[in-house]
Amino acid sequence: MTTLYELYYWPSIQGRGEFVRLALEEGGARYVDVARGKGGVQAMMRMLRGSKSVAPLFAPPFLKHGALVIAQTANVLAYLGPRLKLVPADEASRARALEIQLTIADLVAETHDTHHPIGVDLYYEDQTAEAKKRAAEFVVKRVPKFLGWLESRLAHNGGREFIGARISYVDLSAFQVVAGLSYAFPNAMSRMKRKIPKLWALHDRVAARPRIAAYLASDRRISFNEDGIFRHYPELDPKAHRRSAHD
Amino acid sequence: MTTLYELYYWPSIQGRGEFVRLALEEGGARYVDVARGKGGVQAMMRMLRGSKSVAPLFAPPFLKHGALVIAQTANVLAYLGPRLKLVPADEASRARALEIQLTIADLVAETHDTHHPIGVDLYYEDQTAEAKKRAAEFVVKRVPKFLGWLESRLAHNGGREFIGARISYVDLSAFQVVAGLSYAFPNAMSRMKRKIPKLWALHDRVAARPRIAAYLASDRRISFNEDGIFRHYPELDPKAHRRSAHD
Repeated sequence: MTTLYELYYWPSIQGRGEFVRLALEEGGARYVDVARGKGGVQAMMRMLRGSKSVAPLFAPPFLKHGALVIAQTANVLAYLGPRLKLVPADEASRARALEIQLTIADLVAETHDTHHPIGVDLYYEDQTAEAKKRAAEFVVKRVPKFLGWLESRLAHNGGREFIGARISYVDLSAFQVVAGLSYAFPNAMSRMKRKIPKLWALHDRVAARPRIAAYLASDRRISFNEDGIFRHYPELDPKAHRRSAHD
Repeated sequence: MTTLYELYYWPSIQGRGEFVRLALEEGGARYVDVARGKGGVQAMMRMLRGSKSVAPLFAPPFLKHGALVIAQTANVLAYLGPRLKLVPADEASRARALEIQLTIADLVAETHDTHHPIGVDLYYEDQTAEAKKRAAEFVVKRVPKFLGWLESRLAHNGGREFIGARISYVDLSAFQVVAGLSYAFPNAMSRMKRKIPKLWALHDRVAARPRIAAYLASDRRISFNEDGIFRHYPELDPKAHRRSAHD
């Protein structure tokens, strides 16, 4: 029997943990989502602080697999990829997968900063004016740049998968950012849709895969909400944006 | 003879490329810094756009090694690490190195956002008011959290190196962030210094290593400047900060 995977992440949001959950689900892994179980958030915080055998961790998500504890989302996925057959085994493919995953991570960080442009430790309500400016820049300049690049990478690999000739963890993560951005910025994404046909079709194919479809329909999939990274604040997603926040 | 490494990065700033330059220098690699040579930035932009054989890249830095082109700083370092003997070969050590490197990358991204809190495509002068607020949050809350965590990881591994028992690319990157933050925020860093004695001593040891010392004294090392990531704007580094930007 394969060693159990223990995922540690906040129990009430998709957040960065969702990229790992999707890989574990599609890979058919035997896993527990620790903070959603009996141990709760306390079990996660205990591990986060470190001990003699486990080095202190900066932030969730992290994964425990046997004696190994691994943090940073993209790092966790690079570790899981070959084990769950969610990336080809050769070094070049793994490097390309990590490259795209890290660029998705950059997009996720910038998405977070649309509602927290001044400080992660401050309330959204204390930075709404700045959030409006940052979200306008994000939607007008950054989303087209990131998603346009993802579209071009998909096209360069034949249009159906990001890496090789079958599904990888990168495809799952691309699904998640399209889903998340569509939740957070429905107006902006409806304007983007015709510019990213391959990426959108990939999103739909991933959502329809048997294991992913079952997961999305289950109570293991937490709903998007305004505590996570992809938050829907209508004031950050107007029907139309002027070309620049400073025009 | 080993295959030549070709680094592609902006020729007038340290930026993210500097983490790769430091690894190539300490590793004694045979390399060219392409955009600083005859081909200039145009050679970099040509590669960035992609071709039939090379997929389009999101941003520099990237590395060409034989037929392989690798982007994303931490990904490049994960590739170079085993080849330049700048990380132990076992998977657990490599995963720990990438974890810390990615957390340093997060700190670098947050450093960048102190001078560009609203938009990377806007001038600093158009977002100075917001930059002051974000820098205050950064210096009071984020820098202590990041550097405090690095200090604790260093302590957990015995206090002298981040990974294993000899220098790794993570140590070089830790040197670079301490150097960069000291340039950008000298007042804040002088307040931090006594809280991170091991990290500061590591910075000093790295700077004194023969190959690094020779590099830092050479014209290959570009000076810190206000086009890079670590920028010194005195208005973002007052002598003292109130506890919170919103107190």
